[in-house]
Amino acid sequence: MSRLPQPATVAEIARLVGGEAVGDANAVISAVADLANAGPTDIAFLENQKYAAAAAAAPAGCLLLPPQAKDAPCAAKAKILVDEPRGAFAVLLSLIDKSRRGKAEPVLSPKASIHPSAKLGLGVSVGDFTVIEKGAVIGEGSVIMPQCYVGADARIGKDCLLYPQVVLRDDCTIGDRVIIHPGSVIGADGFGFTTDKKTGRHAKIPQIGNVTIGDDVEIGANVTIDRAAIGSTVVEDGVQIDNLVQIAHNVRIGRDSVIVSQVGIAGSAKIGSGVVLGGQVGVAGHLSVCDRTQVGAQSGIMSNVEPDAPGKPGPVLFGSPARPHREAFKLQAFFGRLPELFDRVKAIEKKLGDSL
Amino acid sequence: MSRLPQPATVAEIARLVGGEAVGDANAVISAVADLANAGPTDIAFLENQKYAAAAAAAPAGCLLLPPQAKDAPCAAKAKILVDEPRGAFAVLLSLIDKSRRGKAEPVLSPKASIHPSAKLGLGVSVGDFTVIEKGAVIGEGSVIMPQCYVGADARIGKDCLLYPQVVLRDDCTIGDRVIIHPGSVIGADGFGFTTDKKTGRHAKIPQIGNVTIGDDVEIGANVTIDRAAIGSTVVEDGVQIDNLVQIAHNVRIGRDSVIVSQVGIAGSAKIGSGVVLGGQVGVAGHLSVCDRTQVGAQSGIMSNVEPDAPGKPGPVLFGSPARPHREAFKLQAFFGRLPELFDRVKAIEKKLGDSL
Amino acid sequence: MSRLPQPATVAEIARLVGGEAVGDANAVISAVADLANAGPTDIAFLENQKYAAAAAAAPAGCLLLPPQAKDAPCAAKAKILVDEPRGAFAVLLSLIDKSRRGKAEPVLSPKASIHPSAKLGLGVSVGDFTVIEKGAVIGEGSVIMPQCYVGADARIGKDCLLYPQVVLRDDCTIGDRVIIHPGSVIGADGFGFTTDKKTGRHAKIPQIGNVTIGDDVEIGANVTIDRAAIGSTVVEDGVQIDNLVQIAHNVRIGRDSVIVSQVGIAGSAKIGSGVVLGGQVGVAGHLSVCDRTQVGAQSGIMSNVEPDAPGKPGPVLFGSPARPHREAFKLQAFFGRLPELFDRVKAIEKKLGDSL
Repeated sequence: MSRLPQPATVAEIARLVGGEAVGDANAVISAVADLANAGPTDIAFLENQKYAAAAAAAPAGCLLLPPQAKDAPCAAKAKILVDEPRGAFAVLLSLIDKSRRGKAEPVLSPKASIHPSAKLGLGVSVGDFTVIEKGAVIGEGSVIMPQCYVGADARIGKDCLLYPQVVLRDDCTIGDRVIIHPGSVIGADGFGFTTDKKTGRHAKIPQIGNVTIGDDVEIGANVTIDRAAIGSTVVEDGVQIDNLVQIAHNVRIGRDSVIVSQVGIAGSAKIGSGVVLGGQVGVAGHLSVCDRTQVGAQSGIMSNVEPDAPGKPGPVLFGSPARPHREAFKLQAFFGRLPELFDRVKAIEKKLGDSL
Repeated sequence: MSRLPQPATVAEIARLVGGEAVGDANAVISAVADLANAGPTDIAFLENQKYAAAAAAAPAGCLLLPPQAKDAPCAAKAKILVDEPRGAFAVLLSLIDKSRRGKAEPVLSPKASIHPSAKLGLGVSVGDFTVIEKGAVIGEGSVIMPQCYVGADARIGKDCLLYPQVVLRDDCTIGDRVIIHPGSVIGADGFGFTTDKKTGRHAKIPQIGNVTIGDDVEIGANVTIDRAAIGSTVVEDGVQIDNLVQIAHNVRIGRDSVIVSQVGIAGSAKIGSGVVLGGQVGVAGHLSVCDRTQVGAQSGIMSNVEPDAPGKPGPVLFGSPARPHREAFKLQAFFGRLPELFDRVKAIEKKLGDSL
Repeated sequence: MSRLPQPATVAEIARLVGGEAVGDANAVISAVADLANAGPTDIAFLENQKYAAAAAAAPAGCLLLPPQAKDAPCAAKAKILVDEPRGAFAVLLSLIDKSRRGKAEPVLSPKASIHPSAKLGLGVSVGDFTVIEKGAVIGEGSVIMPQCYVGADARIGKDCLLYPQVVLRDDCTIGDRVIIHPGSVIGADGFGFTTDKKTGRHAKIPQIGNVTIGDDVEIGANVTIDRAAIGSTVVEDGVQIDNLVQIAHNVRIGRDSVIVSQVGIAGSAKIGSGVVLGGQVGVAGHLSVCDRTQVGAQSGIMSNVEPDAPGKPGPVLFGSPARPHREAFKLQAFFGRLPELFDRVKAIEKKLGDSL
């Protein structure tokens, strides 16, 4: 439960989120909550039908619901019907978030180490013990929190937010409005070496490329995105990356793709736009995965992924190695029936007896 | 091999650990070692029967053994019989550990950046280049090592130990006697956004909740535990978390559960108490896993886990998707016999010939 | 595309890499590029036959090719034939890499915190906000970048490079020419505790060992290598470790082994030399994996791995649980045909009818 900056009536909230108030439009709402914990002055939302029973029972002040739930049973004082209840809820969360943070004045900490040749735009903040190396450029309004490292000639766009302890190595560039959570490392060397066939010793291949990140990208905590051997590892606009993800050298991730936690993408793989890779998925190197492919958690992509037909969105895949998800689920069901199948074959063999 | 603070006889050690000395109780022991490397003045322990042969042959000074090993062959000068040999061994390791560290005087480094409004209890240590933000509270005797970040209004209990480069974001709270290893990030934003169905663009959902960690929790290195969207991500008392684990927003982990390295737990999953998740296990979002469930390494939990009967401990599961482990192992065995089964069916078909 | 320090003719480059120039040996090359992007003044290389068609079409200035490609079709102005095209390409990348970095003068930052008892060799660099604790030893020519933590009595060899925000805990030792990328944690406590059978509470087992890393090891970003309970966790000479890898306490990794991203190796496992573990592989505890074993991505090693015959290299394994890769691929193929097999058995049963 989190308080709104100030209490509001259901009618006022409905106007704010562009929805229709049903029930007691004058009920006063003072906080947001999740459905399970919502009390009589709280507002919650219903994301999918699975929660319909909970919605019916929740003693909430108000529920944000999709239009089709207009007549659904509901213990709340009021409903607000809106096309995207989750989005409407996010609007309320943003209100709270902004009021909590207040307006932080931009500050260049005297305890930071900023090279004199670095170029900082208007309103840039740099936190304690952050290092900004030679030639780095940081765009207007960006906030670099404490203990970050921004390498030589790195470029950060406008209105970015680097949480504490982010490492952005030399020559890498990130666009505007990018958020990077703590502990992430952008631009470490790719994993490249040659191996002497006789001795088995490895020799490093210098990784002289960089990482290029587009606008409106969000990168979770303790993520690693390696610099290219030559050229760039590219994360296009709008990509959402969760915690502990590994993106190897020379990978390209198309715009608005979603990479869930602990995914690993091997070198030079090309991920299309609007792709969703579930948690712990692995993608082998040098592959391409077409636009709007969806891959279930823990799956392994070991060959190129093409659309079923030209212009169609990519398939929905599951398993390791990954297969179309319907096939994968069917195979899992058959897999579970293997003992039965062995029994059936044995019965047949017994019947046929010596004649086999 | 590590030396004891001072040599001791087998009899003295037996008294210390509450065990029974058998053999040469006057033999002098000067160091601890593992079974494979134990020499005539070393003490080692036998954890399970698998090592019985090694125990019989080890030219150790003394072995810590369970009572049932009283008459087991043993090349050591002496045995100490004790209910929990591993626990007894830990007592000796603690002696060494304490003597090595010495007593560090609590120090507030002048090179740290501590906001004047932060409240530090008696005997708190803060290391070089650590940042303690506005309103943070740190309980008596806690040690915050160098280069940590403690966010605004974060609360740390008594006698905690944060190793270097831990990030604890704003508003998060941790209990007493909590240990967090380097590089872990507590309280980064959960992975939440809405997606415009027409454009495919994502919009961030502010994550205004926090993380709440109980007492006596240990968290490994480079772990990520995300703050809740609203409410709290909760890690209850006594939970043990290994390195590189991902815990998503609004997850709850019940007391004394053990989360092995590289596990990923998706959003809003509820893990019971006394649960063991093996390495690289994945748990899908919004699931519940009942108390005392055990899940083998690399398994994937894709549906709720219930006890076999009310009040019973949870099942032992294995595989991706996870199944009861006996069934899973049986299915793996049948899986390995698929070529044989195809051959047998082919032989039957051949026999039946045209009649099919 | 990255520029050479200065343009060179194909003949000059051939001499540099010890290859044979074929075609226009006077063509001037000014940059390196990958095959897909190489233009008329660029040099690229062909790593395997898969790229032969691209090589035939690439309008490059020059291609580095293996000798057997002497007469292969090629749109480039010239070829250089050389036994190891990738290694030859690495030579050119090194030239660029060195010229870009310039010669950095060794600097001990006045903003670092270096304990007076630490011993620093000639030409050591220590960056801003790095902490070097009591008794640490750093060998000649090593570079410790900003914001690193080097624990008490830790030892770093000669000519090492620690990127920003590396944590090396107390008593750990690393050899010469070791590279550690940002965010890696060497020497955190192993995951060890005893559990009270009655209460289910856990008690920490002190981890009093260390980590020992050999010469010429490279460790990726956000890796975790835990210290031993007693004794050492050992990474031998020449081992290459990718990002986000977990190496538990008391593990030993043999020389020149390659550990790809997100691998997890559980406690006390012994990995031989020249082993390759693919991305996201898991190795269970207390196992041994023989020299020159190769394990495919996402596989799980759950039992000891032995060579097929004494003195032979280890097997090539795949799957979870891992099996010999030919068998694993065959089983996957049969797995995909399960629906067909069920149909065939049903047809047989129908034929045999009541007689079953």
